[in-house]
Amino acid sequence: MSDVAIVGGGVIGLACAFELARRGSSVTVLEREEPGFGASTVAAGMLTPSFEVELTPQSLVELQLDSLRRYPQFIREIEAAGGRSCGYRDEGSLWVSRHRDDELQLDHILRIQQQRGLPARRLTGREVRALEPYVSPRAVGGLLVESDHQVDSRKLVPALRAACEAIGVDVRTGTGVATVERAAGAMELTCQHGGVTSPFHADQVLLAAGVWLEEGLVTPLPKIGMRPIKGQIVHLQGQRLVRHVIRNSDVYLVPRDGGRLLIGATEEEQGFDMNPTAGGTLDLLRFGFEVLPGIYDLDIAEIDVGLRPTFHDHMPVLGATTTDGIYMASGHYRGGVLLAAATAHWMAEIMLTGQAPSEIEPFNFRRFVADQTQQEAAS
Amino acid sequence: MSDVAIVGGGVIGLACAFELARRGSSVTVLEREEPGFGASTVAAGMLTPSFEVELTPQSLVELQLDSLRRYPQFIREIEAAGGRSCGYRDEGSLWVSRHRDDELQLDHILRIQQQRGLPARRLTGREVRALEPYVSPRAVGGLLVESDHQVDSRKLVPALRAACEAIGVDVRTGTGVATVERAAGAMELTCQHGGVTSPFHADQVLLAAGVWLEEGLVTPLPKIGMRPIKGQIVHLQGQRLVRHVIRNSDVYLVPRDGGRLLIGATEEEQGFDMNPTAGGTLDLLRFGFEVLPGIYDLDIAEIDVGLRPTFHDHMPVLGATTTDGIYMASGHYRGGVLLAAATAHWMAEIMLTGQAPSEIEPFNFRRFVADQTQQEAAS
Repeated sequence: MSDVAIVGGGVIGLACAFELARRGSSVTVLEREEPGFGASTVAAGMLTPSFEVELTPQSLVELQLDSLRRYPQFIREIEAAGGRSCGYRDEGSLWVSRHRDDELQLDHILRIQQQRGLPARRLTGREVRALEPYVSPRAVGGLLVESDHQVDSRKLVPALRAACEAIGVDVRTGTGVATVERAAGAMELTCQHGGVTSPFHADQVLLAAGVWLEEGLVTPLPKIGMRPIKGQIVHLQGQRLVRHVIRNSDVYLVPRDGGRLLIGATEEEQGFDMNPTAGGTLDLLRFGFEVLPGIYDLDIAEIDVGLRPTFHDHMPVLGATTTDGIYMASGHYRGGVLLAAATAHWMAEIMLTGQAPSEIEPFNFRRFVADQTQQEAAS
Repeated sequence: MSDVAIVGGGVIGLACAFELARRGSSVTVLEREEPGFGASTVAAGMLTPSFEVELTPQSLVELQLDSLRRYPQFIREIEAAGGRSCGYRDEGSLWVSRHRDDELQLDHILRIQQQRGLPARRLTGREVRALEPYVSPRAVGGLLVESDHQVDSRKLVPALRAACEAIGVDVRTGTGVATVERAAGAMELTCQHGGVTSPFHADQVLLAAGVWLEEGLVTPLPKIGMRPIKGQIVHLQGQRLVRHVIRNSDVYLVPRDGGRLLIGATEEEQGFDMNPTAGGTLDLLRFGFEVLPGIYDLDIAEIDVGLRPTFHDHMPVLGATTTDGIYMASGHYRGGVLLAAATAHWMAEIMLTGQAPSEIEPFNFRRFVADQTQQEAAS
């Protein structure tokens, strides 16, 4: 019996567990695989608000900026509690343009950054190469966004787990949850661990199961259309070529410690398939080679595949659901790492006070249920 | 004590072991890793004589054709002795042209095939697609070489090992050879297995150690310049797209059983490095995609890397050396699988009769020693 049972030990589940435990709740995290399986440890870890302003609702941009502001404190608390580094880096990202279309895009991103009060600086091709000499000589310009920081998601997840466990969170790996239901005044979960099924009870349940939210998990909730968006990301290894994240409209290249360079990422509607493909790898390598020819001689260390949990409006669900005692923090799509700090803060607020502040209201669960009711009424 | 000790359990070492044992010798194969490690199990297994006639000495072409003629019998004997399939396939290979330069090359290959009395047939682009509908609609012509057969090198190696063991060959894996020398009327080898060093004696020693011929192996022989040529080959998995081997001047695509498709291969001077690289994979995927766009959706099963054992004239050494009792069958470069049948036949002849027939004379060991003597005299 815990105050809170969290289904899913990814970045979102662990971040919420940490914040709830910090505020005094007893918390158990139930993770079917290993922490971060699915999307969290595959993520590139860039802490970058959306620049596709036409495509991103203002409420989500505000949440991203809110999370970005919370991030330094979030990292400090995790590292202080658990003693493990999150791999935080602040070199910024460098957009590189290849032609006039790219140049227009960089002007556009510059305006967005300025509107948000975030620093950004346009560069000539010569300035780009002065900053990062391995960038292709074909680069005609650039945009340096020094506020784009990053974490190493493969460090963040173990750091979060260590922080959780240091303050008393019970993190159970290899523990799947088959059912969640209300029973005798509390929530009852059916857990499966090593072939053994056993019940678990908690006052509140938080669903943070990523793409598996509606796959193999039975709850009283209506289905709201969670689907996976597959992402492939190639890990190269060798000589360190760049210090900044290098980006253009086709690809990003993210340097990590120890000579690791990530090239990401595809976005594919392929169901739950997690195999690397020829086409995905081909695209990432050729776009990466175009902007940073020096990758040619790097070793391929691995081809990683993740599944981004996505609702049809590409916005997460944060808050209460249609069943008392069941909460949801899911559907973070490409933004789980960036949004983890805000998600943890606001979910703790909602679950401990019962109040959803107005800025979180756009992410309510009922927006999908209302859709369904309207559709049913119309049909 | 054996009649023959063979250093190296690749395709060449095992094929020679099988033939020597078939003729009555007692044979021990000493393999440092697992059979086929290095080049043999990475090979695409195409049984195709060189078409680069300008670059390939006539003596080597004759040896290839000799081996090709011996192959059906070679396969039959291996499969009969050991009871395992070599994955022999006879669908032939289909050269696909993209432009006028390719067309000229196919005319050239056609003439070579005709001179050799091997069947080959020029096709229009339409005929290419009728034969293999997944080939790119940009194909402007083709050349069908029905005499190009193939084996599956990952089946050939275990089939050879099974055949060897069935007729009494002692195949010792995990057994490295540190030294070979003449001692007390026989050859003495120092073997290392699981940290234990022990001597092994044989009347004759055959060096078939691939690229490691002069690396970590001390013999009385002069160094003759063995070097590795790295080859990367991408293994895809999924829907079966083609029945023939598909080739052009940049790439070949080899179908294997079970939906496997190999795309090969790079040729790189990278020393003993066996890591897959971004550039190698990029080139194979983009050339493969150009000729067979359907690979885009196939899974990447693995990226395999082999080291082709190569002397500076790209010809193997077959026969006696400058030390009595030490023989060599090495340096088969890209042709180890194709040349295995002839190599086994002629090495058994040479080692059992002491006579090297005139057609094998061009592959003698002394050609490199003579080079060295001349160089020393000149300097």
